[in-house]
Amino acid sequence: MNSIITISRQYGSGGRFVAEMLAKALDVPFYDNKLITLAAKKSGYAESIFENVEQTSSHSLLYSLSMFGSTAGVYGLPLSDKVFMIQSDIIKSVAAEGPCVIVGRCADYILNENKNVFHVFLSSDLENRVARAVKYYNLSEAKAEDEIKRIDRKRSAYYGYYTGEKWGEASNYDLCLNTDKLGIENCVKIISDFVAMAEANRNID
Amino acid sequence: MNSIITISRQYGSGGRFVAEMLAKALDVPFYDNKLITLAAKKSGYAESIFENVEQTSSHSLLYSLSMFGSTAGVYGLPLSDKVFMIQSDIIKSVAAEGPCVIVGRCADYILNENKNVFHVFLSSDLENRVARAVKYYNLSEAKAEDEIKRIDRKRSAYYGYYTGEKWGEASNYDLCLNTDKLGIENCVKIISDFVAMAEANRNID
Repeated sequence: MNSIITISRQYGSGGRFVAEMLAKALDVPFYDNKLITLAAKKSGYAESIFENVEQTSSHSLLYSLSMFGSTAGVYGLPLSDKVFMIQSDIIKSVAAEGPCVIVGRCADYILNENKNVFHVFLSSDLENRVARAVKYYNLSEAKAEDEIKRIDRKRSAYYGYYTGEKWGEASNYDLCLNTDKLGIENCVKIISDFVAMAEANRNID
Repeated sequence: MNSIITISRQYGSGGRFVAEMLAKALDVPFYDNKLITLAAKKSGYAESIFENVEQTSSHSLLYSLSMFGSTAGVYGLPLSDKVFMIQSDIIKSVAAEGPCVIVGRCADYILNENKNVFHVFLSSDLENRVARAVKYYNLSEAKAEDEIKRIDRKRSAYYGYYTGEKWGEASNYDLCLNTDKLGIENCVKIISDFVAMAEANRNID
């Protein structure tokens, strides 16, 4: 495996867990909250600043850049946009280091020009996502559905704001799976097989 | 294989070809234009009536049903809606006969209640879709891009009109693939593997 795999996932789909198992199976680094820590250390910001960056304005990043200027680097931008741009740099630099699995943070968009990247999206039926949220995130069943919808709206808005693309649209990814149909371990297997085949196919071209 | 596989695909993605090869590999019937012929024969309409049914009004099927009534069967409905409902019946009846591969025609939505169905969506990058349209559909390169966009807008509108869902949204499908990354034959293999694993996983539950 000599590729980078980005994983986007619906909240409660088991996607983060698939990503972590995949990285282990392929013996490559896994980036998730680690990215935030790296970003915090590199930029000198307190980690807490990075925690709620998925709160965005109703405009787009391009709007912020035009209003606040890109010539001054990230200094003139709103905090959330600064954080995004710092994270983008970090995503690019870990990707430059070699094969890895990266979850969330628009990594698919940020690395879109990179030829060695595969983009994966993981979904799951609402009832199963509710069950996972209850089991793993200690939410009551009553609250789980609202929380799932709220977080996915936030992810979708964050993605739309920074990329101008639609989160969860199949044609933006190389492989999308519903984790319910296969179970977690088989998802890891299908993604590994996909990447192995795609790498072989790339070498033929 | 004891399942039904529905395939939705972007125009020029090679999806119809994947579907046909998949049906051959699995040794099950393949339904595509065949459906139209079957529908025409069953309903007594001339086949030509079925050719442009993806032209829909700006309302939804539910609106038509409320305006024109469902108590009188399909007789009071606009022609395109009648055709859709006749096709739906045919899709349900071929699915009841056993495992098969069905392309397009909202088959995923029509068979959504069926437990033995897997839904696949196939996409491809625009430049490769243009290349395929030039090669296989005899379009000039200049016209191919417009034609691709026009047909996919039509498919999306048709799907939205009859299902109320978004065509091409990853979470509406069990498996989505970009055909460029794997090539046609590997897509057939990944879909077959997915179905075999999902069937085994279903038997465990």
